[in-house]
Amino acid sequence: MVKYKIKSKIEKDIHQIFGINGVLAVLGCDNNYHIQTIEILEKSHVLENTEIKNLLNNSPQLVRYIDHDTFYRKYDEKRTQGIVVSFSGDITKTLPSFKDIEGNFGLLIVDNVTDPQNFGQIIRTAECAGIGGIIIPEHNSVGITDVVLQVSQGAFCNMPIYSVTNLNQTLSQLKDEDFWTIAVENGIDAKPWDKIDYKGKIAIVIGSEGQGIKPLVLKSCDFQATIPMQGETTSLNVSAANAVVLFERLRQIISD
Amino acid sequence: MVKYKIKSKIEKDIHQIFGINGVLAVLGCDNNYHIQTIEILEKSHVLENTEIKNLLNNSPQLVRYIDHDTFYRKYDEKRTQGIVVSFSGDITKTLPSFKDIEGNFGLLIVDNVTDPQNFGQIIRTAECAGIGGIIIPEHNSVGITDVVLQVSQGAFCNMPIYSVTNLNQTLSQLKDEDFWTIAVENGIDAKPWDKIDYKGKIAIVIGSEGQGIKPLVLKSCDFQATIPMQGETTSLNVSAANAVVLFERLRQIISD
Repeated sequence: MVKYKIKSKIEKDIHQIFGINGVLAVLGCDNNYHIQTIEILEKSHVLENTEIKNLLNNSPQLVRYIDHDTFYRKYDEKRTQGIVVSFSGDITKTLPSFKDIEGNFGLLIVDNVTDPQNFGQIIRTAECAGIGGIIIPEHNSVGITDVVLQVSQGAFCNMPIYSVTNLNQTLSQLKDEDFWTIAVENGIDAKPWDKIDYKGKIAIVIGSEGQGIKPLVLKSCDFQATIPMQGETTSLNVSAANAVVLFERLRQIISD
Repeated sequence: MVKYKIKSKIEKDIHQIFGINGVLAVLGCDNNYHIQTIEILEKSHVLENTEIKNLLNNSPQLVRYIDHDTFYRKYDEKRTQGIVVSFSGDITKTLPSFKDIEGNFGLLIVDNVTDPQNFGQIIRTAECAGIGGIIIPEHNSVGITDVVLQVSQGAFCNMPIYSVTNLNQTLSQLKDEDFWTIAVENGIDAKPWDKIDYKGKIAIVIGSEGQGIKPLVLKSCDFQATIPMQGETTSLNVSAANAVVLFERLRQIISD
């Protein structure tokens, strides 16, 4: 629909999220997002949700009740559950120093992933698996679109996402700060995913299915982890591979 | 587009798959699918693929070369890579007896999953993780749509999919045939996913995020496995949870 494609300069950083989980995450988080509007389908079941009701009571001036026809014309085919929040604010942050962090701390570096569904799932899974932050290159990957935010089910609110200009420099910085770097890639030097030690400070790098991790980035990593395929299909979807590796890390930490 | 919705009786069991991976899987498998047509975009790069060329040479009478405009009108927005195969044949099979099978053998039971993207990913991941077959209820789950087949990247060709009328009866049958049954569900009696023994003959049951596994099915299972969430997001996507559990099974088998 044209209205989503042509945005004025002022509107360009306005994001939309819908559905109870995503909306509760955005309204409840302390990321300093600026809530623009909370659009609600009149007589929607969403109004029976206690958490939603409490949040609406906090900001009545932002709430817009919309009649059925108008709402469905505007939000056709989206699984809104009758609620849509528009907000502005930076989703990404600048990479800080992790020098003083000790113990088990995992970062996820997402290189070259271009599918917003995959990227959204990766954020959600990372948050569920206790990852401390996600690093993305400013260029060459999918942007933080509304689809990404939506698929993440609000996980982006509780997961720092760091945007960097040069992944190789970032890897150098992380190594200087005592991280081990692990590329999930099916290379000659790769070890099975469960034979890697994920404890301590580690950064896990994943890339797209088509292009994989960029060669220079791959070369900078200390280890490569591979997930051996048992059938005829040559590879897992990147978000499935991400889930396998992040929860193997969690398993090792919990079992420790 | 109307042409995909209104199908004649004859056409109703015709499936379409596109893209190199999916097409190679369908043309190369021995599932007795009846290939109807192989549509190729004229001058497409797909013709430079040696495996595709060999398969086309085997069945030249089925190949239709289509000009750019007609092809894009017909297959708009699909990532076809310039090749679309139409085929008929049963994707699902009748559940056999597994009585005589010994050793590590895993079945995956998919209850209540309604999202075709998730179901397609689940099939692909199961094939990659060495699962021996997928069981789906005839009703109450997503059907085997073309989206499911496409997202599976052809994995459905190498993974028996069994359709059953009553999941509880199926679970009884499997128990009689020495399977342990494990539900992936966040219940009170659940053990952490990595504390379950997945070796031997096992059947893993997964359900949808919204509705979960049906209560009667859940009650019939020997064990429940839970994946503990580390953040604010309350659950993993079902296809991510599936990846975590199936590769924990593989890890245990490989480490044995």
